[in-house]
Amino acid sequence: AQAQSSVTLTGTVDVFAGSLENPGDGGHRTVVNSGGMTTSWFGFKGTEDLGGGLKANFALTSFFQADSGNPGRFSGDPFFSRDANVSLASDSWGSLTLGRALAPNFLPTVIFNPFGDSFTFSPLVLHNNISLFNATGWTATTPSDTGWSNEILYTTPSFGGLTGNLHYQLGEQANAAGIHNLGANLLYFHGNFAATAFIERDQVSNPSPAPFATGDRKTDWMGAASYDFSVVKVCGSYGRAWSDTLAPAWKTWSAGASAPIGAGRLLAAYAHTEVNTGAERKTFSLGYDYFLSKSTDLYLVGMRDDVSGFGSGDSFGAGIRKRF
Amino acid sequence: AQAQSSVTLTGTVDVFAGSLENPGDGGHRTVVNSGGMTTSWFGFKGTEDLGGGLKANFALTSFFQADSGNPGRFSGDPFFSRDANVSLASDSWGSLTLGRALAPNFLPTVIFNPFGDSFTFSPLVLHNNISLFNATGWTATTPSDTGWSNEILYTTPSFGGLTGNLHYQLGEQANAAGIHNLGANLLYFHGNFAATAFIERDQVSNPSPAPFATGDRKTDWMGAASYDFSVVKVCGSYGRAWSDTLAPAWKTWSAGASAPIGAGRLLAAYAHTEVNTGAERKTFSLGYDYFLSKSTDLYLVGMRDDVSGFGSGDSFGAGIRKRF
Amino acid sequence: AQAQSSVTLTGTVDVFAGSLENPGDGGHRTVVNSGGMTTSWFGFKGTEDLGGGLKANFALTSFFQADSGNPGRFSGDPFFSRDANVSLASDSWGSLTLGRALAPNFLPTVIFNPFGDSFTFSPLVLHNNISLFNATGWTATTPSDTGWSNEILYTTPSFGGLTGNLHYQLGEQANAAGIHNLGANLLYFHGNFAATAFIERDQVSNPSPAPFATGDRKTDWMGAASYDFSVVKVCGSYGRAWSDTLAPAWKTWSAGASAPIGAGRLLAAYAHTEVNTGAERKTFSLGYDYFLSKSTDLYLVGMRDDVSGFGSGDSFGAGIRKRF
Repeated sequence: AQAQSSVTLTGTVDVFAGSLENPGDGGHRTVVNSGGMTTSWFGFKGTEDLGGGLKANFALTSFFQADSGNPGRFSGDPFFSRDANVSLASDSWGSLTLGRALAPNFLPTVIFNPFGDSFTFSPLVLHNNISLFNATGWTATTPSDTGWSNEILYTTPSFGGLTGNLHYQLGEQANAAGIHNLGANLLYFHGNFAATAFIERDQVSNPSPAPFATGDRKTDWMGAASYDFSVVKVCGSYGRAWSDTLAPAWKTWSAGASAPIGAGRLLAAYAHTEVNTGAERKTFSLGYDYFLSKSTDLYLVGMRDDVSGFGSGDSFGAGIRKRF
Repeated sequence: AQAQSSVTLTGTVDVFAGSLENPGDGGHRTVVNSGGMTTSWFGFKGTEDLGGGLKANFALTSFFQADSGNPGRFSGDPFFSRDANVSLASDSWGSLTLGRALAPNFLPTVIFNPFGDSFTFSPLVLHNNISLFNATGWTATTPSDTGWSNEILYTTPSFGGLTGNLHYQLGEQANAAGIHNLGANLLYFHGNFAATAFIERDQVSNPSPAPFATGDRKTDWMGAASYDFSVVKVCGSYGRAWSDTLAPAWKTWSAGASAPIGAGRLLAAYAHTEVNTGAERKTFSLGYDYFLSKSTDLYLVGMRDDVSGFGSGDSFGAGIRKRF
Repeated sequence: AQAQSSVTLTGTVDVFAGSLENPGDGGHRTVVNSGGMTTSWFGFKGTEDLGGGLKANFALTSFFQADSGNPGRFSGDPFFSRDANVSLASDSWGSLTLGRALAPNFLPTVIFNPFGDSFTFSPLVLHNNISLFNATGWTATTPSDTGWSNEILYTTPSFGGLTGNLHYQLGEQANAAGIHNLGANLLYFHGNFAATAFIERDQVSNPSPAPFATGDRKTDWMGAASYDFSVVKVCGSYGRAWSDTLAPAWKTWSAGASAPIGAGRLLAAYAHTEVNTGAERKTFSLGYDYFLSKSTDLYLVGMRDDVSGFGSGDSFGAGIRKRF
């Protein structure tokens, strides 16, 4: 069979102007920031049809900060922080990926909330993934980032809308070969209904892989579902996170809705997290996302974020997101 | 309307062999260096026609050092040091850009001198933008680099050849929201005549944004014009720069000419800067730029650079510039 | 003549799972690593036909670590560690390249061993290029990396299958203009027979150019040949390396064979190095490389590596290599 190969240059540039204040910040900052709705990224993806239902794929993609021109999501992120992997994919047995790829928590979190992969304004994403480095000392519940290095990833074929991912990250320790991250997720899509679940049991940090201090193992799971009633799409989630050796444990639930209005969608989402230490966080976001085309949208979002004992912070942003 | 989208991979690789000596260096260095005529860069640009005279654009471009393979113009430069932005552009109201983009001083400086954007051999660019980290302690007059992060940039449509750019960079300070850079430029092209002016009032450094030490505000302005007599194109500029709190203030004038000879152009330029501290700098460059094609040229340039009290340094280079 | 220009996005993603142990390591590490057969890289290459047998070319290519997403071969490597150069190439007089490009040792080493440019499993490449940062204190014999910065490279046209490369790297020192790297290689291909030789005399380190400590000059040469009997292709090499001022000197010989079996090739290679300090290293690798298409292969390799006084280490890997 004649092999066919293609490489695509793709990505998203998302920049907004706005004002940001988290509880505990003691003041707001007026900013032009990157990633109001989607963390800006660019990269190269390729696929080659090997015949017989088999394909070879690769992905080499980088988050970047479109406000400062810096690579990565933050200082210290690897250049290809989003993807750096090669895979074989079969119609019959699924796909096997080697390299840097997603963590089990990512797709369930970003697909089942109205603000998607907004690491600035999605309440669920913020509770799960963004620690606040301020007086609140708020710690995200995800044990080991949204992408894993040194990973072996197996994805099942779709069974009537149900697919599963099995994620394994080697710790690569010379004298502790058993150290690893292990997790899985399920994604189910059937007509207007969708559901998901993930679980992770982690011993290695990311994006700079190293065994957790004190030999800790951290666990995180979540279940979520959505239903699209056409006039409004609703979603909800519930999850927990804890450590084998450290005190804090988290319970998070979220609810959201999005409704088509004109050429855009009205978005509303709420997330609530209780820590067993007594702390509580409540975050509500409301936005309107207007599509100029399938690949370009304008958005306006406001958010109130509250951590018990530290009051609330209000943030808002108006931005442009351009996919390419 | 059916939206149409395209992404372009573009850039310039410019490398020369030569000998470099600035006044105060105490000796020359024989080098293979990047960027004799244009600072080497590569990147991705895209445009999408949204219909109704509206377009969405993005630019994601990086300077790099083609002699060492290092990214940026220098150590510490962000990866996408040239551009990292998204914009909406209208035929009727102009364009609005968010992200990392040009500073007001850039286009007036590089369009109105014969050596263009040569940060190695253009006298005007050197006086405005390149501090000498040697015994002379010579400081460039541009307050805050040639590109700004965290920027909101508005560009007018063309009014009979006249366009304007309004640049605003947020300081993003938690307790000093008013800290910012602000500037504007005008560019006028009419037949063989062209003219420009810019002004900047800056409080924030670049490429690593931080408020200036001592809460300083720095101001810089320049006017320039050119006329193309066909056998020779002449240009000249005058500008001043000062600080609200620091002693030095600068006056710079420049003159240049370029003349078509065969498939190339003979280039000559002079810049003169007086500092109110008494120091004076005089720089003269002479070159020939030969075009093998529209996108590839060979160049040979010599430069004499003189700082009062430190004598002169002679530099020359022979190089290849390839645009793609 | 109408100039024609093109830019290509190209590279290789190569990731394997396996177990690695060098002699002196005191234990193995189970890993998902990048570059089992080829150091992963991506980049941009362009060529422009200037007419009259003349072309302008550029290459802007980067090694990267597909397991962690980090750029370069290791921390401290420049971003465009593989290539960052521009060149003019003529059918009649050869080509002249300016910028960052290959060192003289690279092509002779990787073309004349069965494991090609595997910096993980090729015995010859390991002996020549990979120091072991462990108890053995093993030092690679190549004086100054496989790529040079600040380089002027002249390549001859082919004379009946014989081509030569002359490499010169400027030291760019202010007070020691004579400091440089200088080397050359020859490559000869005629039917089933091929032969090569290189020599380098180096005073400057890479990838971060600086004069060697103690003002040392290091020399390295190698000759090699191969013959393809169709059922098996055999190759062998012999080379030496020494320093003008430091004690150790190396003698390395290698032998290898590869044989087509099915859609793949069986690969076997051995390298032997004697240091005049008495140390000895023997490395043997055996592998099978199966091609799913011209641009995608799967490989399985085992290696035994032995350093006198430190016993042996066994490594193996199973991986996917995808060229694009």
